[in-house]
Amino acid sequence: MTAPPAATPFYDVRGRGFARRATLTDAWDWIDGRVAAPAARPLPLTECAGLRLAEAVAALGDWPPADRAAVDGYAVAAADTLGAGSYNPVPLTAAVAVIAGDPLPPGCDAVVPYEAAQAAGPFIEAVDAVAPGSGLERRGAWSVAGSPLLPAGRRLRPADLGLLATAGYGSVPVLPAPRVRILLAGGPKAGAPEQLGAPLAALAGRDGAVVEAVDILPADIDALAEGFARPGADLVLSVGRTGTGADDAAPPALLRAGSLDLHGIAMRPGGSAGLGVAGGMPILLLPGEPMAALAAYELLAGRAVRRAAGLPAGLPHATVQAVTGRKLVSEIGCLDLYRVRLDDDGRVEPVASPGWPGLAAAARADGFVLIGADSEGVPDGAPVTMYGFD
Amino acid sequence: MTAPPAATPFYDVRGRGFARRATLTDAWDWIDGRVAAPAARPLPLTECAGLRLAEAVAALGDWPPADRAAVDGYAVAAADTLGAGSYNPVPLTAAVAVIAGDPLPPGCDAVVPYEAAQAAGPFIEAVDAVAPGSGLERRGAWSVAGSPLLPAGRRLRPADLGLLATAGYGSVPVLPAPRVRILLAGGPKAGAPEQLGAPLAALAGRDGAVVEAVDILPADIDALAEGFARPGADLVLSVGRTGTGADDAAPPALLRAGSLDLHGIAMRPGGSAGLGVAGGMPILLLPGEPMAALAAYELLAGRAVRRAAGLPAGLPHATVQAVTGRKLVSEIGCLDLYRVRLDDDGRVEPVASPGWPGLAAAARADGFVLIGADSEGVPDGAPVTMYGFD
Repeated sequence: MTAPPAATPFYDVRGRGFARRATLTDAWDWIDGRVAAPAARPLPLTECAGLRLAEAVAALGDWPPADRAAVDGYAVAAADTLGAGSYNPVPLTAAVAVIAGDPLPPGCDAVVPYEAAQAAGPFIEAVDAVAPGSGLERRGAWSVAGSPLLPAGRRLRPADLGLLATAGYGSVPVLPAPRVRILLAGGPKAGAPEQLGAPLAALAGRDGAVVEAVDILPADIDALAEGFARPGADLVLSVGRTGTGADDAAPPALLRAGSLDLHGIAMRPGGSAGLGVAGGMPILLLPGEPMAALAAYELLAGRAVRRAAGLPAGLPHATVQAVTGRKLVSEIGCLDLYRVRLDDDGRVEPVASPGWPGLAAAARADGFVLIGADSEGVPDGAPVTMYGFD
Repeated sequence: MTAPPAATPFYDVRGRGFARRATLTDAWDWIDGRVAAPAARPLPLTECAGLRLAEAVAALGDWPPADRAAVDGYAVAAADTLGAGSYNPVPLTAAVAVIAGDPLPPGCDAVVPYEAAQAAGPFIEAVDAVAPGSGLERRGAWSVAGSPLLPAGRRLRPADLGLLATAGYGSVPVLPAPRVRILLAGGPKAGAPEQLGAPLAALAGRDGAVVEAVDILPADIDALAEGFARPGADLVLSVGRTGTGADDAAPPALLRAGSLDLHGIAMRPGGSAGLGVAGGMPILLLPGEPMAALAAYELLAGRAVRRAAGLPAGLPHATVQAVTGRKLVSEIGCLDLYRVRLDDDGRVEPVASPGWPGLAAAARADGFVLIGADSEGVPDGAPVTMYGFD
C-alpha cells in the first residue's frame, strides 16, 4: 500500500493485532455526528410509503368540497317523508335519483337510501322517514381548507397516502430513502462476505434505505478505495477484510480513499468493525464472518442507516422483558451480543457464545441480549431485555 | 348489461339497495376456501426475504468444512507456548502466519492471535500461552452435513439468508409472493377510488404480495370484466363502483367475467364489498370511498393476500389491550370498525363513527377497535382490543 497521508494517525493492525478498541458509545457518537437525513424533497405519493413527512400538511380545500349525497338513493325534502313507514308508504313526487357524491338538487335536504324506498308503478315511495341532513355530507364536514392533516415527521402509513391523494396532493415533501451501497470484499476467507449481500440488503431495507448497489470487489486496496469513493450513495457498507491478517485490505483502503476514523470496536462479535468517510459519504466497515457482520450491522450500521432515513436511531426490534435461564458471562470493557432462545416461561438461553457465534445455532435464536461493557455478566435468573428478531 | 348466465343467482342492488348482507364470517369462509398459497418453487436468495420456506433445509456439508484458523495470527503447536507471558516471551521457531479461514499446517493445533505475539528482530515470540484448539474451528463444529438448519414454514429473516448462503445454498424452495392486481374503477364519485392505488399497493406489500399492476379502468361493465379476467395475477383487488347507484358497474362486471359469490357484507364501513372468481382468480370488490376501502382491505382483502402469501390469515397488527374512554355504539347484525385514538392512560376514544368515518379524522387514529355483529356496543370503561396502525 501507499504510505498514508502524514496528517492521518493510522494504527495498522495487520500482522500486529488491535492495540485498543473504541467503545460502542464512541462509535455511536461518530455516527450521530456524521450521518444526517438527506435533504427533504417532494416525491410522488406512490414513492412515499414508509418515508417521513418533512413538513406538516394541511387540507388544500374543504372536504367534501360541496354539500353532496353520501349514499345512493333519492334526494328529497326531508319534510316530505314525514310519517313514512313500511305500513305507511309515502309517495315521493319530487324525488330525484342521486348517487353518492352527487350535488344536492335545489330544495332537497336529505337522501332516502334505496333500502328505505320502493317503486310503486311509476312512482317512488318512502318506507322510512328521514331527518334533514340525513344521507348528506356537508361541505367541509371532514376538513376545512387549512386544517392540519398530518404532522411533520409522520412516517407515512398506507392509509395516509389515501388521505393525501383524496385531499388533492399528488406529491408531498418527504425525507427520501437514503441510497445504501453494499460492497463485498471478495475472496475466500473464514467467513463468506460475498454471501452477505442478500441479508444486508434486506436489513437496510428494513431500516428505510434503498440499496444503490451490491458489488463484489476484489479484496485489494485499490479496488476497495475506488468503491468507497465512487459517487452515487448516501452511505456505504463494506463487508469483509477488516481484521488483522495480511490480506485485510479494507481499513487501509478507506484510509487511502478518505479517512479511517475508528477501527476496532469493543464488542463481540464484530470487534474488527471500522468507521470513516470517503467522497463525502460515511463508510462503515463490517467484518466478513457472517455472524459478526450481522451483529455489527445491528449495533453499528443499522443506526447509521436509520439516521440517514430520518428514523429513530435506536434498535427497531420489539423488546421482551425476560430472565436468564443460565448465567451470561461477559468481559469487562467489551459489549457482548448473546443470541438467545426464549422459552414459554419467559426465560432466555444463549444459543452460542458471543465470541464464537456459530452459524446453525443463530438460526435457532429468537433474538439477542446485550451485556454492557461495564458488566462482567449476569447471573442465572436475572432480568434482561431481549431484542426480538421477528 | 348482458343477462347473467341462468345458473347464477344474482340480486342486482342497483337502484334497489341491498336486500341482505352476508356475515363477515361467511366472507372469511369464502376466502379461506378459495385462496391458497401459490405452489412452492425455488427462488434465488436475493428474492427470498420475508417469504416462507416450503421445505425444511438441512446443512449440505460440514461447517466449517475442515479444521481451520478462526483468527488471524500464528499457527503453532500449543505445547510450544507453554509458560509464555509478557515477562517471559517464548520464541516461536515453527510459527506459520495464518489468516482466519486458512487450513492448519501439519503439526499445529492452535493459533496465537497477533495480540498475543510480538516481533523480536526476525523472530516471533508468544507473550501468552495458548491451549490446544485455541483459535481454531474444528470441522463440523457449527453444523454437520444433514443437520437441520431451518424448518419448513419459516418466514425468512435477513440473517437466515446469510445462513443459507454460507451453508452453500444459492436458492431455496419458497412460497413465492402472490401477484396482486389492483384495479381502480375510475370516474368522479363520492370517494376517490383512483387515488387508492398507492395505499392499497403499500398494504398488499405489507401482507407479502408483489403488485402485478395498478390499472385505472373506465367504470363500465365491459372494461371491468376484461380487467378481472385477464391472466397474470394470483388475486385481484378492484376498488370502487360496488354500491347501489346506477353506475355501480363492478358487481355486474364480475358476474359477467365469472361469478359474483357474495355482494354486501354486514360491516361498517365497507358494507358494499363483494367477492367472486374470474379467470380462475379470486376477485375482491372494495368500495370506492377511501375509508371504506381501507377498512374493507383490512377486514377482507388483507386476509386473502396473506393467505395467498402463505402467511397467517389473521390481522397482522400489533394489539393493545385498552379500555373505552367513551361508549361505542354498534348495530346488532353488523360488525363495526371504529378508528380510535389511544391516550397515555390506555383509554381509546373514537375519532369518527364507523358509518361516517370521515377523512382527516382517520389520520389522527392510532388504530381500530372491532365491535362484533352480535354486540350492541360496549359501555364507557369496557376492555377492548385495539389493532395498532404502527
